[in-house]
Amino acid sequence: MNNSEILAALTEILEQRKKAKPDSSYVASLYDKGIDAILKKVGEEATETVMAAKDFQYHNEDAALRQKLIAEIADLWFHTMILMADQGLSADDVLKELASRFGVSGHDEKAARK
Amino acid sequence: MNNSEILAALTEILEQRKKAKPDSSYVASLYDKGIDAILKKVGEEATETVMAAKDFQYHNEDAALRQKLIAEIADLWFHTMILMADQGLSADDVLKELASRFGVSGHDEKAARK
Amino acid sequence: MNNSEILAALTEILEQRKKAKPDSSYVASLYDKGIDAILKKVGEEATETVMAAKDFQYHNEDAALRQKLIAEIADLWFHTMILMADQGLSADDVLKELASRFGVSGHDEKAARK
Amino acid sequence: MNNSEILAALTEILEQRKKAKPDSSYVASLYDKGIDAILKKVGEEATETVMAAKDFQYHNEDAALRQKLIAEIADLWFHTMILMADQGLSADDVLKELASRFGVSGHDEKAARK
Repeated sequence: MNNSEILAALTEILEQRKKAKPDSSYVASLYDKGIDAILKKVGEEATETVMAAKDFQYHNEDAALRQKLIAEIADLWFHTMILMADQGLSADDVLKELASRFGVSGHDEKAARK
Repeated sequence: MNNSEILAALTEILEQRKKAKPDSSYVASLYDKGIDAILKKVGEEATETVMAAKDFQYHNEDAALRQKLIAEIADLWFHTMILMADQGLSADDVLKELASRFGVSGHDEKAARK
Repeated sequence: MNNSEILAALTEILEQRKKAKPDSSYVASLYDKGIDAILKKVGEEATETVMAAKDFQYHNEDAALRQKLIAEIADLWFHTMILMADQGLSADDVLKELASRFGVSGHDEKAARK
Repeated sequence: MNNSEILAALTEILEQRKKAKPDSSYVASLYDKGIDAILKKVGEEATETVMAAKDFQYHNEDAALRQKLIAEIADLWFHTMILMADQGLSADDVLKELASRFGVSGHDEKAARK
């Protein structure tokens, strides 16, 4: 699967969990607790990303700490995706915003790839 | 462009900026300042995401605040991408991690889409 | 009790908990988990402070939300005090730093109070 | 000066700056920018506290990094004091809350000091 397909699959999972019972999954329980619980997790994962990056800075040959940093950023992205799903948004909105900001279109991309 | 292409184009831009002079772009100047400057921005954008989400919670019909939330999450993702580029990682690593975590593969995705 | 006495009493409690068994109190368990667990809480309480401040901004006549903001800042200060105790520091160090930074001494204070 | 006096002097300085012109001091400019600018700083200083604590964890004999950690926590406390001043609160509210939470009164303190 490519990144588009992964993001689409995750978005679909996050939508499905909206219909699930609160106690059926972690994501369903977060929706049920509401936006403050989700935002608390976003702040928490950002802090854990910073901590993991500092550990990796001091041990940059350590594969486990490299993987830990990836896992923390994955947690951070994932919880922002839960936030977006909760608010009727998705990763598409974020990537469209980033693309427009950097002038990344089919045409510009060619230029960027040169 | 689809999301895979946008992420690939952004990743390429972030790699190119590594070779650029510090004063030639915002990203190049962040690399030059080092990991602490990048992490400080990650923390800052996480805080701004939380603030934008609270504003949107109170005015959830306000299109400008909806766009502000998208823009803050875009900032957050973008600065984690700068962090990853700085550390030899990329969005591919994060999405691969998320896919494995949720059992999202070509096969599972079919099941998820049902 | 005045603020000096409260800070001194809290500092003493935090020192005593260092000798306590991990399962005897929340603070003792945090010391036992180590600095990353403490830092995670600092990040979490900062996020909760931001959220409580936004809620109070939108309902600034609400006494419960006013108290919630105070409680979150109290949590934040308290967890930085745990961090300091864990690292051999205390509130005295922080207030001494702030006093020196603002030229607040017995003499300067008189000037400031005019 | 003891901690009570330092907190009182800082509180007075923060009150005075409310009447000052925005461009006359850093604190006055923050009040003028509004609560979001203050909260952004709270989040930023929390992140810098986490980073400084990680650096000190790896070099715990380094006096400069010890001082850096103190300075970052001082920044964090100071910006929460600006937030409180901006919202009609003060350090007194926070310490009163902590005292009540830990049963720290004149009487309890004696017990705690034994």
